[in-house]
Amino acid sequence: AMDTTPSVPVNIAWIGNATQGHLRLLDQTLLPTRVEHIDCRDIQTVWRTIRSLAVRGAPAIGVAAAYACVLPVQKLADASEARRQAALNEAVDYLATSRPTAVNLFWALDQMRAVKPCTPDNLLKRALEIHDQDRAMCLAIGRHGLERFRKINPRRKPANLPQSLGVLTHCNAGALATGGVGTATAPIYLARQQNLPLAVYADETRPLLQGARLTAYELASAGVDVTLICDDMAGQVMREGRVDLIITGADRIAANGDAANKIGTYSLAVMARHHRIPFFVAAPSSTFDLSIPDGSAIPIEQRADTEITEGFGRRTAPADIKTYNPAFDVTPHDLITAIITERGVIEPVNAGAVAMLMSRD
Amino acid sequence: AMDTTPSVPVNIAWIGNATQGHLRLLDQTLLPTRVEHIDCRDIQTVWRTIRSLAVRGAPAIGVAAAYACVLPVQKLADASEARRQAALNEAVDYLATSRPTAVNLFWALDQMRAVKPCTPDNLLKRALEIHDQDRAMCLAIGRHGLERFRKINPRRKPANLPQSLGVLTHCNAGALATGGVGTATAPIYLARQQNLPLAVYADETRPLLQGARLTAYELASAGVDVTLICDDMAGQVMREGRVDLIITGADRIAANGDAANKIGTYSLAVMARHHRIPFFVAAPSSTFDLSIPDGSAIPIEQRADTEITEGFGRRTAPADIKTYNPAFDVTPHDLITAIITERGVIEPVNAGAVAMLMSRD
Repeated sequence: AMDTTPSVPVNIAWIGNATQGHLRLLDQTLLPTRVEHIDCRDIQTVWRTIRSLAVRGAPAIGVAAAYACVLPVQKLADASEARRQAALNEAVDYLATSRPTAVNLFWALDQMRAVKPCTPDNLLKRALEIHDQDRAMCLAIGRHGLERFRKINPRRKPANLPQSLGVLTHCNAGALATGGVGTATAPIYLARQQNLPLAVYADETRPLLQGARLTAYELASAGVDVTLICDDMAGQVMREGRVDLIITGADRIAANGDAANKIGTYSLAVMARHHRIPFFVAAPSSTFDLSIPDGSAIPIEQRADTEITEGFGRRTAPADIKTYNPAFDVTPHDLITAIITERGVIEPVNAGAVAMLMSRD
Repeated sequence: AMDTTPSVPVNIAWIGNATQGHLRLLDQTLLPTRVEHIDCRDIQTVWRTIRSLAVRGAPAIGVAAAYACVLPVQKLADASEARRQAALNEAVDYLATSRPTAVNLFWALDQMRAVKPCTPDNLLKRALEIHDQDRAMCLAIGRHGLERFRKINPRRKPANLPQSLGVLTHCNAGALATGGVGTATAPIYLARQQNLPLAVYADETRPLLQGARLTAYELASAGVDVTLICDDMAGQVMREGRVDLIITGADRIAANGDAANKIGTYSLAVMARHHRIPFFVAAPSSTFDLSIPDGSAIPIEQRADTEITEGFGRRTAPADIKTYNPAFDVTPHDLITAIITERGVIEPVNAGAVAMLMSRD
């Protein structure tokens, strides 16, 4: 798959061979003003890097943790399998504590624990496979997504703008969050590679500004035509006819297709409906939680006041002001035009269509 | 009207008598972290204070400029009327250059120029009248607005919240922008005074955060129950049933009721329609521009990239990223439930209803 992968910022890479190499992670906390990497030669460094959100995004965390499992056995190439296994188990248990709610992290660590015999070569081979699998997932989402994009008839754009297909996205469901070209960004990168002209609008995504700091950074770095807007400008951008489709990621999708994602996603879906703009969710099939019948059962995490009151580095709100800071919202399935997965496209979105796609191999 | 005015932060005040007093202006650029005043004893200081946005909001600028006209004639109480008139004319022409597009500024300065004889006492009397007139306008909007609010049947609120009437507002159409209790905020202050329990949600209002810095500050200072949210949270707050009405100000209203206001207002109106929440615009009748048939003729000012990329002292977006930064949007009249003016309420909003209200004295 490597030769067909569009060029995106490298956030996770194994440098060197199995016994002497190390894991290099992009420090996303310094973006967009500084592009620096953290060279991880022990699992403590990987643990801190995951914990500090220097690497974030469920797929990316899983891939990073898989590579990290090579490190503790590098000096044990000639030791007994039992000694290596003990070191590996200890590493797996420790790394699992870095982000306690990341499903992909536990899955990747289970895969690594099962490698037999657990030599550095075998472990690196499995980590590379996990990384490749993530890359392939992203590319498959990208291919299904781009195919769907091509069915859209672009609106006539304002006279001073190129007649590109207008795409609006929110938060970062991008290459930086995965081991590949991202989820919501995957069809955008493939379109760029195939010379389909897009004009992408990235919501800055308050309070943590992942759109401004991460999505704008990675798309601009890859040469995509991207324009940064504030979240409250999205409606006006739609009204001006600049947007032909909206695409976001998802954190969790219920059995009926209701999708939890970064706060602000639901507002976009409502405005998309008003403007008759298709609204897409891009996510791997692992995002579906069929044990949840609908979005009302998805708990909404509330986060700290200071994200709102001092999010730009200095205090921008009165002392002691009350805030409400939900981290996610749930978009009901009837506002979602289609869900784009690596297995195919769910359209229209309802419980039957979700079940059908999830029952495929 | 003074005794019925709810207590709000004082942004404009004349201190002392006509011949020796001075103008005191709240420095809004330092809010919300510092509450400091600028004592203006000459028109140069007033000019700089208006120019720097330390005083902002069209009505507030008009009132401040009116008081400023007293200053240049204070030492000329015993001089000839011709000398005073010359000094006054010079001041009027100079102050008119502080914010070249502020209609209220020109109106107030014309009023002051017409004072005869232009003694310090007469000029201060006229400035106080202009201030009182602005206060009365705000109170009238407040009374009409509150009467309208009382007709709304509040939604059942989430179990952990008080069953107050939920109000969402955007930007600052508040006391700080006028000589009184504001426009969109006027019914909120009157409700507080009359013990009608409200729960107000203030959008922070990117890029310049007038909601976080000004509206949250002035409402909290007056003891109003106010909760600060990011702009992309408004949809979720509506979906949870917390909002019974939305009210914003307006910068310019066309003959058919289409209303230009701070960017983000249009998105709220679209979401209000989806959630069947009434959407109100509060504005003095001077905001109507009957020479403009509809909103399509209202030009949208584009502002600097840096407001989005480095709004609060540190850079939060990649270098050289493209931005789109419209300062205003236009809400079409059919998304506006009612326009609340000092003369009464326009509902439903259409060209005929606007013409009827504007033809009243």
